[in-house]
Amino acid sequence: MLIIKVGGGQGINYDYICEDVAEIIKRGEKIVLVHGGSHEANVLSEKLGKPPRFVTSVSGYESRYTDRETLEIFAMVYSGKANKFIVEKFQKLGINAVGLSGIDGRLLEGQKKSTLKIIEGGKKKVLRGDNTGKVEKVNVDFVMLLINNGYLPVISPLCSSYEGEAINVDGDRAAALLAVKLNADKLIILSNVPGLLENVEDESSLIKHIDRNKVSEFMEFAKRRMKKKMMGTAEAVEGGVKEVIFADARIKKPVSNAIIGKGTVIN
Amino acid sequence: MLIIKVGGGQGINYDYICEDVAEIIKRGEKIVLVHGGSHEANVLSEKLGKPPRFVTSVSGYESRYTDRETLEIFAMVYSGKANKFIVEKFQKLGINAVGLSGIDGRLLEGQKKSTLKIIEGGKKKVLRGDNTGKVEKVNVDFVMLLINNGYLPVISPLCSSYEGEAINVDGDRAAALLAVKLNADKLIILSNVPGLLENVEDESSLIKHIDRNKVSEFMEFAKRRMKKKMMGTAEAVEGGVKEVIFADARIKKPVSNAIIGKGTVIN
Repeated sequence: MLIIKVGGGQGINYDYICEDVAEIIKRGEKIVLVHGGSHEANVLSEKLGKPPRFVTSVSGYESRYTDRETLEIFAMVYSGKANKFIVEKFQKLGINAVGLSGIDGRLLEGQKKSTLKIIEGGKKKVLRGDNTGKVEKVNVDFVMLLINNGYLPVISPLCSSYEGEAINVDGDRAAALLAVKLNADKLIILSNVPGLLENVEDESSLIKHIDRNKVSEFMEFAKRRMKKKMMGTAEAVEGGVKEVIFADARIKKPVSNAIIGKGTVIN
Repeated sequence: MLIIKVGGGQGINYDYICEDVAEIIKRGEKIVLVHGGSHEANVLSEKLGKPPRFVTSVSGYESRYTDRETLEIFAMVYSGKANKFIVEKFQKLGINAVGLSGIDGRLLEGQKKSTLKIIEGGKKKVLRGDNTGKVEKVNVDFVMLLINNGYLPVISPLCSSYEGEAINVDGDRAAALLAVKLNADKLIILSNVPGLLENVEDESSLIKHIDRNKVSEFMEFAKRRMKKKMMGTAEAVEGGVKEVIFADARIKKPVSNAIIGKGTVIN
């Protein structure tokens, strides 16, 4: 079983990804795909006069402040447009994909956090009305029901709170938990960079290998969105996933290339 | 088995619908829900500077011209916002809903029609680049897999062409085909009117009963969106569905009221 997380940044080539995944599935591999949509969500937010608000938590992580209107935009882009058009690509390739969000079948469940403690202008603030949370449970039976009946789950990272509310969660950490709970052999995290870079400005400064016991030592190299990927990696490794690979989603055969070690391999 | 189609017009109360459906499911009934989103889709289209274009076919039916951009808006509103927030309502009520579009698992499949023959300004025209079609096949195994495992399918009327492309289809006729293929006892079509009216301006002019062999005689009373509901009814009745009921989606317990015959009963 492979869990593949694909980002939603600019430059990511979903045609290459879906073609590659389709071939790998046809060779008999079981796959779950988790996708993003951040760039598109930002574009739609701007068009609707509701620009995204990114905040930095007191612990230093950047996240999207998600009021109800933002959650709606998120649902439209991630679970609507992005999800359905990834499913369409797979259907054209003869793969019977099923697009779901984490709220469907309570596939992903977790604790809602309605207040955010943030740093803004050097000061600590409390932000209310947030609709975010952290995935803590996976409906493994539901995912396996689909896979065992020949369907490819394509998952957008909306999640259900324990009370059944839709909440926004981080896709990388959701993918990490899926990898743990589904006993996946590998977690592949694709984005618009070649992997973890020593110097974020220099794509040739790729860190090729990280020992699974030393993930925390490399946290300093993770900037912005890469921070959550490293957090997800730490959680996956701790949960028993044998290998996590960060790789480039802009090139042909991105998954096959990740599998043979092109990228940052954590094992 | 009940197939319930709920429109997307103004005034429809999804809280009432979901509460009622949840109670009926808890009594042991099997249900498939198909939903709309037309009003919201129009609102978003306007906001994005892409107002909806409604055209009248040479055979006199009104439909939405669906270029790729419109299809994207459609996916965002129907399969994103509307679908996920109906699923959320059910999750809060303790019903494990799964939101799907017809392209997921090739749940709904049909022939794509890329040209439309329309009447505009009294003249016949051919409109190209359309992404619509007619549902002809239902993946019954997939729907039953979900139902038999305790999930409530909540379906938005996107459909897969035989080539795997996403196409826009009429939700009423999709629900009718689902009712036929799933051997449903009843097809309940809820919208923001009490049923088929003799005079579309007068809600007290409700037609309470139509003999299943005389559906075509009542076609003259169907205006605008009601036409497709009558077409779907004719198809459902012809396909062996015992009863079709048009009923009001603005009132409390709309499904229970439909079941006891409040509305237009076709049997």
